[in-house]
Amino acid sequence: MSQCENYNVCADADSNLHNFICSLNVETSEHRVESQKAKCKFGKEGVCCKLCANGPCRITPKSPKGICGADANTIVARNFLRAVAAGTGCYVHVVETTARNLKAIGENKKEIKGMYTLNKLADIFKIKEEDPHKKAVLIADKVLADLYKPTFEKTELIEKMAYAPRFKKWTELNILPGGAKSEVFDAIVKTSTNLNSDPVDMTVNCLKLGISTGLYGLTLTNLLNDVILGEPVIRQAKVGFKVVDPDYINIMITGHQHSMISHLQERLIDKDVTEMAKKAGAKGFKIVGCTCVGQDLQLRGEHYKEVFSGHAGNNFTSEALIATGGIDLILSEFNCTLPGIEPIADEFEVKMICIDDVAKKANADFINYSFEERENISNTVIDEALKNYTKRRKDVTINIPKDHGYDDVVTGVSEKSLKDFLGGTWKPLVDLIASGKIKGVAGVVGCSNLTAKGHDVFTVELTKELIKRNIVVLSAGCSSGGLENVGLMSPSAAELAGDSLKEVCKSLGIPPVLNFGPCLAIGRLEIVATELAEYLGIDIPQLPLVLSAPQWLEEQALADGAFGLSLGLPLHLAISPFIDGSPVVSKLLTEDLEGITGGRLIIEDDVIKAADELEKIIIDRRKKLGLE
Amino acid sequence: MSQCENYNVCADADSNLHNFICSLNVETSEHRVESQKAKCKFGKEGVCCKLCANGPCRITPKSPKGICGADANTIVARNFLRAVAAGTGCYVHVVETTARNLKAIGENKKEIKGMYTLNKLADIFKIKEEDPHKKAVLIADKVLADLYKPTFEKTELIEKMAYAPRFKKWTELNILPGGAKSEVFDAIVKTSTNLNSDPVDMTVNCLKLGISTGLYGLTLTNLLNDVILGEPVIRQAKVGFKVVDPDYINIMITGHQHSMISHLQERLIDKDVTEMAKKAGAKGFKIVGCTCVGQDLQLRGEHYKEVFSGHAGNNFTSEALIATGGIDLILSEFNCTLPGIEPIADEFEVKMICIDDVAKKANADFINYSFEERENISNTVIDEALKNYTKRRKDVTINIPKDHGYDDVVTGVSEKSLKDFLGGTWKPLVDLIASGKIKGVAGVVGCSNLTAKGHDVFTVELTKELIKRNIVVLSAGCSSGGLENVGLMSPSAAELAGDSLKEVCKSLGIPPVLNFGPCLAIGRLEIVATELAEYLGIDIPQLPLVLSAPQWLEEQALADGAFGLSLGLPLHLAISPFIDGSPVVSKLLTEDLEGITGGRLIIEDDVIKAADELEKIIIDRRKKLGLE
Repeated sequence: MSQCENYNVCADADSNLHNFICSLNVETSEHRVESQKAKCKFGKEGVCCKLCANGPCRITPKSPKGICGADANTIVARNFLRAVAAGTGCYVHVVETTARNLKAIGENKKEIKGMYTLNKLADIFKIKEEDPHKKAVLIADKVLADLYKPTFEKTELIEKMAYAPRFKKWTELNILPGGAKSEVFDAIVKTSTNLNSDPVDMTVNCLKLGISTGLYGLTLTNLLNDVILGEPVIRQAKVGFKVVDPDYINIMITGHQHSMISHLQERLIDKDVTEMAKKAGAKGFKIVGCTCVGQDLQLRGEHYKEVFSGHAGNNFTSEALIATGGIDLILSEFNCTLPGIEPIADEFEVKMICIDDVAKKANADFINYSFEERENISNTVIDEALKNYTKRRKDVTINIPKDHGYDDVVTGVSEKSLKDFLGGTWKPLVDLIASGKIKGVAGVVGCSNLTAKGHDVFTVELTKELIKRNIVVLSAGCSSGGLENVGLMSPSAAELAGDSLKEVCKSLGIPPVLNFGPCLAIGRLEIVATELAEYLGIDIPQLPLVLSAPQWLEEQALADGAFGLSLGLPLHLAISPFIDGSPVVSKLLTEDLEGITGGRLIIEDDVIKAADELEKIIIDRRKKLGLE
Repeated sequence: MSQCENYNVCADADSNLHNFICSLNVETSEHRVESQKAKCKFGKEGVCCKLCANGPCRITPKSPKGICGADANTIVARNFLRAVAAGTGCYVHVVETTARNLKAIGENKKEIKGMYTLNKLADIFKIKEEDPHKKAVLIADKVLADLYKPTFEKTELIEKMAYAPRFKKWTELNILPGGAKSEVFDAIVKTSTNLNSDPVDMTVNCLKLGISTGLYGLTLTNLLNDVILGEPVIRQAKVGFKVVDPDYINIMITGHQHSMISHLQERLIDKDVTEMAKKAGAKGFKIVGCTCVGQDLQLRGEHYKEVFSGHAGNNFTSEALIATGGIDLILSEFNCTLPGIEPIADEFEVKMICIDDVAKKANADFINYSFEERENISNTVIDEALKNYTKRRKDVTINIPKDHGYDDVVTGVSEKSLKDFLGGTWKPLVDLIASGKIKGVAGVVGCSNLTAKGHDVFTVELTKELIKRNIVVLSAGCSSGGLENVGLMSPSAAELAGDSLKEVCKSLGIPPVLNFGPCLAIGRLEIVATELAEYLGIDIPQLPLVLSAPQWLEEQALADGAFGLSLGLPLHLAISPFIDGSPVVSKLLTEDLEGITGGRLIIEDDVIKAADELEKIIIDRRKKLGLE
């Protein structure tokens, strides 16, 4: 993890990736860390306000208020709530798209791949209907109806989905959200110029948005995708740049809305399409996974063995992936599609197509996705990929670092596949925890950033530290992309675990870090937490379970985090979410919240100290449960 | 307009207000201009990004991209779109509340005060129903249904309300919005971390939001309020601090949602309530207007002569108003309720009650408004005002500058009352314009800020300069509050107009600056523009009509402005809306847009140059119409 000698490239937990980036002649995000290293302290502390033409105002000891009279507490809370609301909005957009696709599948009587989840959702939603397609429509309609409710109208599904003790707590705290889209809308209004000035009201509002994020954006997106795309099955898979096979026409996917590419996945392996590829000199088409949609495809890889070449990497791996020259077309539908890929795609003559205008890239062609148009869209993408393959392969040198990645990553882990693996009950896991062989569970989740020690550095170091302490790690998000690319999700990583966890891993043939896939699957971890609590007959904050999103990057991560806090989980971040300038917001989130929801925010930029604190919480909770 | 000698207080167009502020022992926004005078140039130019944990990033010549690769164009467009979306959200919240109140009035068969507008709306919406209460419900339902549509679904009312040539243009440009709440939602998603990077797409999106703002947030809010609260009638009224009568229990109102206080207005003059006031030693209750809800009440003052003491002033007058000691309770329901009023309210023992949680003030009691609870809410407000009157009047010195304000402000001007005044047709106005007696029309609208030369300074100076050039000025927003408090809306202001405009004003007995009331009434100006264009059989961009929001302050103003630009109007601002850092966004808005919608943004911080440019546009357009 040393700095590159040729350039000022930031550190990277993945040394092969680091060496490859250092060898490139293109500028990547990792290079730009240096030129952006002078950080604005007002921005970092959240005490800068740009809401009006009197500003920007900045809070200092000599100017403790903005011109309008807003103090640091108001300004920080406003900025924070707006960020959480935007993050919630992103996830809600994703679940809306997913529900619309499920509805269209039902209406058009197309294949339903996840019958188990379809029936499970119908049970949860109390839908009485035998026909699976009609059932799919009814499920989708219920989700869509809830999303579009006003804030002042009760949702139907939250009570049905939430763990009862939590639902009770949220009701008591008056943080049950109304319709998710309106909640986001209201929070944006609330944070506009000269509206709300109450830091407590605004911070508590984040918890409400967290619930919308968690139950709709995360949990339901996963489950609806399970119905549309097939349930995850545990298996081993190849990851890293080695998944790119230049003999194929390679379509890199980025985004979060897997159901939007479901038709393309099937179409790419149709005989006529493969024939077209062969005519152009390739063996066929392959999809190369990148960012969360790639993780989601990897998670469900059992169903897509032919078309999916594997997951290459996370957000800040994408620029280097394009620079291998092995990618012929990029299809994007959401973040985390970095602007930084645009000039690299231009240089390597990679065609970019975007199918959701919220994520329109400056140099991409835009095709508006709709279920009705999906055949035409798939054909256009195939056509463009073919044309571009023929054109660019003459000009571009392909240079894929074959040593990058692993062949044996354990993937396909979900709340269902994990329980199945354990024999259809959580008992074996609970027994292992009770016996102390597994001290506790940590979700190490979320994004990757470049500033918490470097690309994936904090995530990887913290994970190593936790497994060494016999704490099993579950991961979802770009964090998974980083952890799998350094081998921590391969069975051999058992060697890095503490003695008792190592023994458990070896006997089960699993790594000490379990790969739940995309950030959306943070919702799956939370289902696991809920089911464990239910099994034990306790509430979630009593579990020896902690969350860390050490390298959170995006507004979405803050919304995820707000759900964790609503659930009553301790949540560690290595970088403060721009709240340090407010004593009120900081105290509320890092101290008082424990007495409110049971959760609390921990901001700690030192790996060992963070691991110490998370371990201490686990030990405390074990004690309270009478363990050890 | 000199600086105060005792303090560093910013300049003020209103010298009596300025002197009063200088005499105070409390800190106001005007004092804080000095301590916040060091402005962040990155923020001013819009090139600072705080969307992720890698940041904040700032664009400089040496660091032309953020870590993710976003350049100045992406960052500026993203910040700008998010601000416009939030502003649209605010107005959409206001129209939603108003429509819900109208619906409740219909359902509960309560008094409908504006039958003319009720029928007009029913005609526009093509509602066939005789019963006025049912009609009200149907109108409200149509508005609410449109607001809640998804972005991908066509609205029903835009085509019905928009001027046909504009509707055609918007259709061609593909900027017709879907449901307004979803449009705001999508824009927030679009501007989140690593989503859209296309500066053109994001800037054009602002126009779409402008249409939602203009037709729902502005136009419809006015018309629905006309139905609920009564249509404006032209009359003369008292303004300024002199409206405060300490013999009464004074409730100051701030916000934008007039229909939320409609019940209180009636209740305050009920006999039993007046009796309670008398028992406490007062003559009764009075409402003192402040910010836009006060402007709206002033506009409809003909119907509320007994309860309404008059409009005291705009956003940055509110702190001084409280410091007169004459206010006993503040009832707020939206912005522009400055955080700066909080410590002053505490010092002068003024109780604060807020009835909409989006606008919760840190030290206010919160009561959640609903139509069903309005009687209880009114009674609570009355009760608290009584208690607080009794308590505070013993402690607090009342010091009302009696020289502040005017007695003869012409108010009650709307698209309807003005046309009625002209004899039921626009012909007289068109003739005056055609003959050159009136050179053209300028809407000088929007907020007041403290940084475009000082409180109301740019607004007042520009207005004086325009009327001198025989351009009639229409005003709506906090700008009106400033203009009326310096006498420009009194008939005697005719003396300040150019010779031919002076003659027109004198013969009609009107001032050269017409007072349309709150910022919401920018929608009324735009109805006037539309009706003038319709009368002449031309499109809006051909009219000798310009807009200026010289002292725009809030995100709402940017959304208003986006509507002006969609309508094809030239829009002047004295302060850049934080876009100067982007060549693409700046060029698009200040140059290219003229060839697209016909509108364009003019940023000019010099009064004379701004007047020159606006006059030049008017002269050019006159020429193109064959006038002069």
